[in-house]
Amino acid sequence: MDKKRVLVPVANGAEEIETTGIVDVLRRAEIEVIMASIHEKSKKTPIIQGSRGIGLVCDGYLEDYVKDDFDMIALPGGANNAENLSKCSVLIDKLKAQREANKWYAAMCASPAVVFLPHGLVDGEVVTSYPSFSDKFKKHGKYSEERVVVSNNCITSRGPGTAIEFALVLVEKLASKEKAAQLAKGLLAYLPK
Amino acid sequence: MDKKRVLVPVANGAEEIETTGIVDVLRRAEIEVIMASIHEKSKKTPIIQGSRGIGLVCDGYLEDYVKDDFDMIALPGGANNAENLSKCSVLIDKLKAQREANKWYAAMCASPAVVFLPHGLVDGEVVTSYPSFSDKFKKHGKYSEERVVVSNNCITSRGPGTAIEFALVLVEKLASKEKAAQLAKGLLAYLPK
Repeated sequence: MDKKRVLVPVANGAEEIETTGIVDVLRRAEIEVIMASIHEKSKKTPIIQGSRGIGLVCDGYLEDYVKDDFDMIALPGGANNAENLSKCSVLIDKLKAQREANKWYAAMCASPAVVFLPHGLVDGEVVTSYPSFSDKFKKHGKYSEERVVVSNNCITSRGPGTAIEFALVLVEKLASKEKAAQLAKGLLAYLPK
Repeated sequence: MDKKRVLVPVANGAEEIETTGIVDVLRRAEIEVIMASIHEKSKKTPIIQGSRGIGLVCDGYLEDYVKDDFDMIALPGGANNAENLSKCSVLIDKLKAQREANKWYAAMCASPAVVFLPHGLVDGEVVTSYPSFSDKFKKHGKYSEERVVVSNNCITSRGPGTAIEFALVLVEKLASKEKAAQLAKGLLAYLPK
């Protein structure tokens, strides 16, 4: 089986627990993860400033990976991160193409409401988000309060405390339920219900 | 009340979920956190390489903070990180002084076994650690399998999946149980038992 490949696009304001939770757990599953800054490419080390003041070093810039194929695109939250991701047209186009190709796309916390919802990426899907954004989905109509929600190829989750569970569901979909259970044990983490 | 101040010493090999879990949650509680690289000071940005390949930008180098007073010193895990921390005599001296002053010191995952145990920092304490290190505590005799253990001024925990619970107990001790409960709700996290 080919090694699965996941794109994790990030911007200034990314929630640190969510970002490292996704990347760390997927890498433990031996999935290739590209954590890519959506900010303008420069010769500097691609560092994004997290929501609680921790700088995170990315693997590169989105523009270097935008033409690559990924088995999944997974967005961490953080309100400012989500605002930045939502304004990145290159990323939005890539997410739309991912959805149209029936491939996995996922987001947690602020990102389902701020990135997916306004760009029509969750039309017809059941979704969850950080609780304070639940009102935004009133017209959308299919909001869930589950900690992780899988709806067709769209996976959403709620906040820092659900990040590992979210990542374990991503592993379940890209690898297997057994792999996710094995990782949960090694992480001392609660398995998603 | 003065703002509480916590030192989080880190080295290459730090577990990313644990490191960000501690720093992020403490900062949400409005506690001042200094995440300090124990590596040799240079003019470069102090970046440590995490156990799953994410570079984390520190607030500075340990040598610049070693003479400061801290209300707590909290160590994340990661096997290589713990080995590096254990060899840092300046840090070990600071931890011993912290214990002798009856001030908080805490560690999780590999660090209770690899940093605290060989330097006599848990003599007479009940401790936990990453499960694979439990044998090392056989002679020590007071090992617990609880997810977070408080013993006098020593707080220990188990692995990435317990990082937020660990950090919430640190908040409980430095701020209050109410603050920890409020943060747990905002994080969508499980409260420690």
